[in-house]
Amino acid sequence: MATRSGIITLTTDFGTVDGFVGTVKGVILSLAPKATIADISHEVPAFDVLSGAWILAASFRYFPAGTVHVAVVDPQVGSQQRRIAAVVDSHYFLLPDNGLLTLVAKRQEIERACVLNKPQYWLKDPSSTFHARDIFAPCAAHLLNGATLDEIGSEIAKESLFMLDLARVKIEGDSMIGTIVYIDHFGNLITNVDGKALSLARRIMVREHEICTLASSYSEIGQGKLGAIAASHGNLEIAAGQASAAAILNAKVGMPVRIEIG
Amino acid sequence: MATRSGIITLTTDFGTVDGFVGTVKGVILSLAPKATIADISHEVPAFDVLSGAWILAASFRYFPAGTVHVAVVDPQVGSQQRRIAAVVDSHYFLLPDNGLLTLVAKRQEIERACVLNKPQYWLKDPSSTFHARDIFAPCAAHLLNGATLDEIGSEIAKESLFMLDLARVKIEGDSMIGTIVYIDHFGNLITNVDGKALSLARRIMVREHEICTLASSYSEIGQGKLGAIAASHGNLEIAAGQASAAAILNAKVGMPVRIEIG
Amino acid sequence: MATRSGIITLTTDFGTVDGFVGTVKGVILSLAPKATIADISHEVPAFDVLSGAWILAASFRYFPAGTVHVAVVDPQVGSQQRRIAAVVDSHYFLLPDNGLLTLVAKRQEIERACVLNKPQYWLKDPSSTFHARDIFAPCAAHLLNGATLDEIGSEIAKESLFMLDLARVKIEGDSMIGTIVYIDHFGNLITNVDGKALSLARRIMVREHEICTLASSYSEIGQGKLGAIAASHGNLEIAAGQASAAAILNAKVGMPVRIEIG
Repeated sequence: MATRSGIITLTTDFGTVDGFVGTVKGVILSLAPKATIADISHEVPAFDVLSGAWILAASFRYFPAGTVHVAVVDPQVGSQQRRIAAVVDSHYFLLPDNGLLTLVAKRQEIERACVLNKPQYWLKDPSSTFHARDIFAPCAAHLLNGATLDEIGSEIAKESLFMLDLARVKIEGDSMIGTIVYIDHFGNLITNVDGKALSLARRIMVREHEICTLASSYSEIGQGKLGAIAASHGNLEIAAGQASAAAILNAKVGMPVRIEIG
Repeated sequence: MATRSGIITLTTDFGTVDGFVGTVKGVILSLAPKATIADISHEVPAFDVLSGAWILAASFRYFPAGTVHVAVVDPQVGSQQRRIAAVVDSHYFLLPDNGLLTLVAKRQEIERACVLNKPQYWLKDPSSTFHARDIFAPCAAHLLNGATLDEIGSEIAKESLFMLDLARVKIEGDSMIGTIVYIDHFGNLITNVDGKALSLARRIMVREHEICTLASSYSEIGQGKLGAIAASHGNLEIAAGQASAAAILNAKVGMPVRIEIG
Repeated sequence: MATRSGIITLTTDFGTVDGFVGTVKGVILSLAPKATIADISHEVPAFDVLSGAWILAASFRYFPAGTVHVAVVDPQVGSQQRRIAAVVDSHYFLLPDNGLLTLVAKRQEIERACVLNKPQYWLKDPSSTFHARDIFAPCAAHLLNGATLDEIGSEIAKESLFMLDLARVKIEGDSMIGTIVYIDHFGNLITNVDGKALSLARRIMVREHEICTLASSYSEIGQGKLGAIAASHGNLEIAAGQASAAAILNAKVGMPVRIEIG
């Protein structure tokens, strides 16, 4: 198992107003004073597990092996949902078993998984409302300090982890029908289609709009115009030149994108 | 007096757009290069001392003893308002004397307080507009480096600190009348009523709405339904299942919450 | 050349939702595990190079000499725009050559500049869409680790750097006509006029509004009233007492401010 990088990342839907994140960092630093804590995002839309899964999968691999990634979105505290730890590609993940790991596990196999069931690694008297603070943060600190998965939990079958049912790319005649799975801060529309499909495309349609430019970089797309690009995360993306494709197209997550091949 | 934890936290109403926070961190790191800086919040609503007091009080205790907490909301730079340092529960606080410490000091006694009046611990030529940068940040760095309260200021009577006049829980017949004191990112309504009151409640009313569920965790509240809960911060809270109680109830800070006992 | 401070700052228009910033931090920490990373802002308005230039210039000088400042706003990836490193006042800057350095370079001379053209200091197989991750972050980490400008790039003439064409203060009769160049989180209107002009002013006009108070601190301005102040960044600023001057005046960047002298 990977040695620890000394880094803990945080991905949550807590927002940055209330001090929830500060509280979590306080718990980590109390137990692991030398930890380097890096925020991936605290603005995952509230309760939106799919968006959290996307953000986590796009970012985690740029951290060194042995990093501990804490991800908490809609943890359904008090339900029967499990709190789990998993190892993928020598990275550690601590998260509720609600599908947040889906897109990480899509590209690489889960090596091990355990359920967090050892209260001696939690804060004393854990609340029934804030497990990021009471369970995930202390377990992350203990992992960083060298505790093993076997110490903080009990092994479970990798196949037992809950995974989101993702939209699949469909073939209709000479077209691929993909789906918008995420819209980023710039209004870029990220699809579930592999970016390599761009080289096969004759034209691309979103709603009644034809995407005219098949670009290899954002700057090839004229200002305010739309273009399709194989983006840095590997997927096909619809972007606009110095503008928001989402606003121009009035696009939403879940909308289809038609790639005509030929 | 507590040894130093090596951590400085920041709680402000500066926002994260303009670089004010970066500037403060630059000053701290120039004087204390090894400091670990943790943001509690920079999105306290502008000039809203009560919200800042709530956020600070909910978060600080999860950091290790000996942490230096800098809190700056509506500092009224240029007025006669004092800049103070205080010690509560072996934590250090640096803040304007405008009530930001009220909720920290409500649960635990202030051990010591001083006024920051030693310019040799400030930036040279301090401005009359940005004391977080020119006074609080350098004093925090010096405290972290081991300076004592007596070095950075002059002792003042603990009783002289300005405290906010908080709403009190009232008894009317067989009901307790509490007040919404804070609304968090998820739209949860935090009241000034001790969470233990939940076990005594027959029903709870916010405006004309009856809160049907008295829950012990968020997941017990049905999706889109309202529930009351003894939350992780210790107070009674009105929440909604995967939704915003504030939006459902059109609730605002200051509104009453009626807890019928019996 | 300055020794390194061990600090890397980040100023971007990436927002904090998507994990772009986390990805950049992952790359830096993979190459420079001991780096201290400080966010200056990730909420520069998208594609707004002038605002980015303002935020960077107002903050950088408070970090210690030898700090590496990465600034990425509208990098026009894929265009002929150069990626550059520059040294100003013993601080290092890594940024696209699009004018982001304009306000830093206005007060102090650029000491050296180079174009980043050594792919051995980049991530392997850099994308054509995310140079902050693939070029700037690894170059920043290598600089922090002690690499020299000559190692990560090739020297270019300082005069060849692209600079924004800034609004200039004009004289009309007995008045100075300045321009609002930035509006901060509090709604304060920052002008391009030196704050020292305040001592010469008889009255100040924004649109048809007379600014009544020439103040030396925010607290001198009555609640909800407007005042002019020589602010902490050195420029003349229009502020309101515990309120937003931008909202009261319906002001926008680019609007004129008339300072009547005498």
